[in-house]
Amino acid sequence: MTMHTVPRSSRRLAASALVAIVVPALAQTPAAPTRQALIDELVVANHILANEGVLDGYGHVSVRNPAAPNRYFLARAGAPALVTAADITEYDLDSQAVTNTTNSTTPTIPPGAGYQERFIHGEIYKLRPDVMAVIHCHCPDVIPFGATSVPMQPMYHMGYFIAEGVPVWDIRAAGGTDMLVRNNQLGRALAETLGNKSAALMRGHGAAVAATSLHLVVGKAYYLNLNARLQMQAMQLSGGKVTYLTPEQAKNSTQDYERSWDFWKSRLPAT
Amino acid sequence: MTMHTVPRSSRRLAASALVAIVVPALAQTPAAPTRQALIDELVVANHILANEGVLDGYGHVSVRNPAAPNRYFLARAGAPALVTAADITEYDLDSQAVTNTTNSTTPTIPPGAGYQERFIHGEIYKLRPDVMAVIHCHCPDVIPFGATSVPMQPMYHMGYFIAEGVPVWDIRAAGGTDMLVRNNQLGRALAETLGNKSAALMRGHGAAVAATSLHLVVGKAYYLNLNARLQMQAMQLSGGKVTYLTPEQAKNSTQDYERSWDFWKSRLPAT
Amino acid sequence: MTMHTVPRSSRRLAASALVAIVVPALAQTPAAPTRQALIDELVVANHILANEGVLDGYGHVSVRNPAAPNRYFLARAGAPALVTAADITEYDLDSQAVTNTTNSTTPTIPPGAGYQERFIHGEIYKLRPDVMAVIHCHCPDVIPFGATSVPMQPMYHMGYFIAEGVPVWDIRAAGGTDMLVRNNQLGRALAETLGNKSAALMRGHGAAVAATSLHLVVGKAYYLNLNARLQMQAMQLSGGKVTYLTPEQAKNSTQDYERSWDFWKSRLPAT
Amino acid sequence: MTMHTVPRSSRRLAASALVAIVVPALAQTPAAPTRQALIDELVVANHILANEGVLDGYGHVSVRNPAAPNRYFLARAGAPALVTAADITEYDLDSQAVTNTTNSTTPTIPPGAGYQERFIHGEIYKLRPDVMAVIHCHCPDVIPFGATSVPMQPMYHMGYFIAEGVPVWDIRAAGGTDMLVRNNQLGRALAETLGNKSAALMRGHGAAVAATSLHLVVGKAYYLNLNARLQMQAMQLSGGKVTYLTPEQAKNSTQDYERSWDFWKSRLPAT
Repeated sequence: MTMHTVPRSSRRLAASALVAIVVPALAQTPAAPTRQALIDELVVANHILANEGVLDGYGHVSVRNPAAPNRYFLARAGAPALVTAADITEYDLDSQAVTNTTNSTTPTIPPGAGYQERFIHGEIYKLRPDVMAVIHCHCPDVIPFGATSVPMQPMYHMGYFIAEGVPVWDIRAAGGTDMLVRNNQLGRALAETLGNKSAALMRGHGAAVAATSLHLVVGKAYYLNLNARLQMQAMQLSGGKVTYLTPEQAKNSTQDYERSWDFWKSRLPAT
Repeated sequence: MTMHTVPRSSRRLAASALVAIVVPALAQTPAAPTRQALIDELVVANHILANEGVLDGYGHVSVRNPAAPNRYFLARAGAPALVTAADITEYDLDSQAVTNTTNSTTPTIPPGAGYQERFIHGEIYKLRPDVMAVIHCHCPDVIPFGATSVPMQPMYHMGYFIAEGVPVWDIRAAGGTDMLVRNNQLGRALAETLGNKSAALMRGHGAAVAATSLHLVVGKAYYLNLNARLQMQAMQLSGGKVTYLTPEQAKNSTQDYERSWDFWKSRLPAT
Repeated sequence: MTMHTVPRSSRRLAASALVAIVVPALAQTPAAPTRQALIDELVVANHILANEGVLDGYGHVSVRNPAAPNRYFLARAGAPALVTAADITEYDLDSQAVTNTTNSTTPTIPPGAGYQERFIHGEIYKLRPDVMAVIHCHCPDVIPFGATSVPMQPMYHMGYFIAEGVPVWDIRAAGGTDMLVRNNQLGRALAETLGNKSAALMRGHGAAVAATSLHLVVGKAYYLNLNARLQMQAMQLSGGKVTYLTPEQAKNSTQDYERSWDFWKSRLPAT
Repeated sequence: MTMHTVPRSSRRLAASALVAIVVPALAQTPAAPTRQALIDELVVANHILANEGVLDGYGHVSVRNPAAPNRYFLARAGAPALVTAADITEYDLDSQAVTNTTNSTTPTIPPGAGYQERFIHGEIYKLRPDVMAVIHCHCPDVIPFGATSVPMQPMYHMGYFIAEGVPVWDIRAAGGTDMLVRNNQLGRALAETLGNKSAALMRGHGAAVAATSLHLVVGKAYYLNLNARLQMQAMQLSGGKVTYLTPEQAKNSTQDYERSWDFWKSRLPAT
């Protein structure tokens, strides 16, 4: 990958140029502005997740195309902090890149340029019609939970969704010989373990997080990680005698994380 | 909330314009400059608390109006890092926004635009005439103490006020079905648990901190969080055999945190 | 203290102006340039210690005047991050500010404007002719050791001086009723506990660190804090079965921390 | 060392001037551009390692000269964050600086200006023809493992190479009386302990990391440190009942860390 050899400003110009070229097409498709706005939001989500330490050089975030629910947007393989709109491509739910068409503003990425584990996204979207956005991360504080039999528990209202349970998926049981979700079969097995929950841990690897919007999935991934640290602290402090949120409290504590999004967006380095 | 879609400079201009318009009114009200200075300080307090990690996208800080002790200032609902003077409104002690008047420099926020939990502030001001400033936070290192039965203790003179005791409030006992202090009844229950102390923990949620000035409440919230981390470390290091400040030492170790305020203010990102 | 209301650039101009005025006096005293260079280094030390988290809004660092060993330089009371050359004053070893003289480039600070605990510095200089620089800090990771009976141990060569032993001083034994070293008697008691060591912990308060140069004392304070964290981790990891540096290894591992100084200096925010 | 007294921009100009002067020589040696590119990458590696906390003021990174495998490049002694191309010199495998020749673009550093512990690099290159890059670091979270008998284990795929085993080297067994690898004999003993592994811990000191490329060695050093922290957390969380990567999983989880390199490079402060 040579993405970093292109100066940021050049890549941004390239993206703008692309938008300019397709303006006539956009003028004929009423849904197009929403599409571009969604892609821009996906770029911001990539940058926020890297800036807040949920992702580092690895991991990825996607959003379902609301105008075509059997497709989703995801960057080409690269570090999330460096993703630009020009890197976003569209996939079908088998995680095959969609061929460029006249009403598409996204480029077709070269063969083999996608994330190897994009199947996590496609398979979750298949099984979960309610899910509009997915994150795969290696966020550090959840790794210890994925490597032990200690279940994650909701420490406070910001991690309310943890009360649903956070299942742990072991890729060996699904037939994987390395740790990567390299195909639809492995992606489906992970999606089935996730079930109707917000998050699943991947033993020896990281986590998958799913939500009904891009802002929500970013908030859930962030607080999954923070809640993990707080639970470790509380268990050590008290010898394991911790009062978690009750199921009813958790159910009534739904968060939209909108202020978190505003805050995190304001913290992004100037570009 | 779309506050972040307005560029910072525009919002600042808007605030300045507002001040300019009301200058004639200010000229007739001797207390007005103090009012604007207090609002400016409240904005700085919001920014410091976010920059130092006491608040993140959520939580809030208020200050009592010294010229009208049955009123207090608080931002409209939004991320503390993004608060500007134009976002500050005035509330009565029932936490109802005060109608704009000729001698008011603050706007009336639209109905429903206030923090849902502003009742924490109003009820503490009602019960505690000495309190001039209040913070509600989710500062991470206190969450484990709110979820266990381990009492907070003063590790060093910077956390002297912890020797007063830090009671833990459980919203279920007050009839809450979710975690939010949504009305005056719940706010009053929390204020009663706080009693004459500096801070109370809210189980599964965060903390409320009260002090006789804005600078003091910021310092107390910061060191409440830091002291929590140090106590966890000391208990693990020694198997719980920790020497805390004696009640007499704590009583004689009053801090004003003025140098902390200077330091934290100097660390704010340029605007 | 209103130091922060003066813009940084103005304060710097004021300091430069002062230097300009005294140039004739400097021209007559050969030692004067060294004096100004030492003051400038002391300002950098203040900024480094704040930037690296050894000091926060509180704590202080001093350097002995090599041309007049019964005097030392220390900032007036204020946050270390904000100290400028104009804030540095000269004290005798009883920690009384030295009256301005024709061959002095430092201002006389107003009465009462000194750090309340400057006696820590003066009394250590009195008892330890080898010591050329002193730090008093509340660096967080040493607080747990000051509050327990677990002795600090050298985890690695960067903390070699810890092998000398790090005594813990309890101000109650010296007659203090609060936590502050408010006079020479308390300062002397602390200096006697320090003895010929590099550092002493102050129970419920922080630490005092002494060394033969400014660069050394900054390095020792930094690694005292980092070593404390590493020792806590190692003890938890192994149930307390830790291999520390042997006395001989520690003795042969003297560090000058010069590269640390270069690194930390390069990390200071632009001014 | 007075490197920090030269402004960064001046040092960079000096380096550029050097390049300009040797352009005629470069035009005659086809391998020369690769050489300069490698030196530039080595400078970036130094800056990344300091910026990400793997190195601080101390530690060093080297790369073997692919055009002359019995030589390697390493900065002169100094803080890694401040290294420029002009600081890079060439060593033979006995870690003696190579005399300047017409087809060399690197300066000969003054006698005694090299890192005291450069023998770590030379001896690893001697014993390990596959190794193209070496790091010596004091990265904090591995220090506790070097001081105890708890073996490092691979927590997740990012630390896959830890499954090879991370031997602990004690310099006392090799005859060292202080902690520094001051000669080829000590360097050889360390290299022999490292054997065919990626990393060895140095008791009471730090670690040595070796890999087949500069990007790889940077990634391995970073994740060695992060994996150490995660293993400590997992052991505390579960009382030591942790599921690590299986040998087969680890073997199949080879990482190239290319996206990490891109990410870390993008985070470097502007120069």
